[in-house]
Amino acid sequence: MTATRSTIKRHPERGSHDTEAVHAVLDAAPMGHLGFVVDGQPFVIPMLYGRIGDALYLHGSVASRLMRTVAGGVEVCLTATLVDGLVLARSAFHHSMNYRSAVVFGRAVPVVGDEKLAALKAISEHLRPGRWDEVRPPSERELRQTAVLRLEVSEMSAKARSGGPVDEPEDLTLDVWAGVVPCALAWGEPIPD
Amino acid sequence: MTATRSTIKRHPERGSHDTEAVHAVLDAAPMGHLGFVVDGQPFVIPMLYGRIGDALYLHGSVASRLMRTVAGGVEVCLTATLVDGLVLARSAFHHSMNYRSAVVFGRAVPVVGDEKLAALKAISEHLRPGRWDEVRPPSERELRQTAVLRLEVSEMSAKARSGGPVDEPEDLTLDVWAGVVPCALAWGEPIPD
Repeated sequence: MTATRSTIKRHPERGSHDTEAVHAVLDAAPMGHLGFVVDGQPFVIPMLYGRIGDALYLHGSVASRLMRTVAGGVEVCLTATLVDGLVLARSAFHHSMNYRSAVVFGRAVPVVGDEKLAALKAISEHLRPGRWDEVRPPSERELRQTAVLRLEVSEMSAKARSGGPVDEPEDLTLDVWAGVVPCALAWGEPIPD
Repeated sequence: MTATRSTIKRHPERGSHDTEAVHAVLDAAPMGHLGFVVDGQPFVIPMLYGRIGDALYLHGSVASRLMRTVAGGVEVCLTATLVDGLVLARSAFHHSMNYRSAVVFGRAVPVVGDEKLAALKAISEHLRPGRWDEVRPPSERELRQTAVLRLEVSEMSAKARSGGPVDEPEDLTLDVWAGVVPCALAWGEPIPD
């Protein structure tokens, strides 16, 4: 995979163009942020997605401006980030975040028929494995109201930071607590309707 | 505030151009995703930020391609999203997410001197209130290595969904568990360095 746009220049030791590394981040993150351009203006919108093998899928209302714009084959960038912890160093300068992120470049194309249905299932299963088979499947009318796009990926990369602070040697004797405060998305007790 | 780019067309009842609503989301989210355009290609990169009143600040290495690009006064879009819950409906079609998001459009300009230092403190305090005064402040050399940008906001909007599933009346008798699984970023036990 070529990597002109996704060349990792800052902290290249944290980066990877490995497909499995990118997929691992995409699978672990609940959602992403989709970037696209209209008249030179960038837009960044939160988006759910699903993955089947190498294919990534987005969905939305057929009436949405976003879906119609993106379905037109414009260049998009889908980025998903997991915040894993706050890195507290002894100096302000060396504070950091532990995180994993995936950046995917490509163009989106509409899909129909069996692929559309499989994509909707993949988006559902990404968030809640097993749910799709428990609920009423989409009707013909609901499917007509839903646009599904496949992202034709041209480049992708993953980047991550983990571990404790990296302080200046002369700061190590400062009387300042240093370390990592881990964080993660936590699911609470389900609230019945 | 004008709202051409940030007009909320899908589910307008979920949206707001109210400054306080946007600030509330920005303050609650730990980080955002910054979108910008290079040669027609959108890029979306995870970014920390800080806020002082109406001013939003970004920071990064002076050597970073991202900071140099964005500092050039290009149009950017900063979006922050909090995932609040998974909405499990009785049909696949009506599944949804509870969330709060803020979308900010504008251009970034470099800041120096006292404003730069205040901005770095704001970015630090956003993540860990009180930390700035506990740690070694940035040296002259560290400040020279850090670029700080102020986002000159032209438009902004907030959008949110909350509450339970909205099912079709005829689905309410289906034998399917429906409701909301809440979620939130949870901080764990600090790990000393």
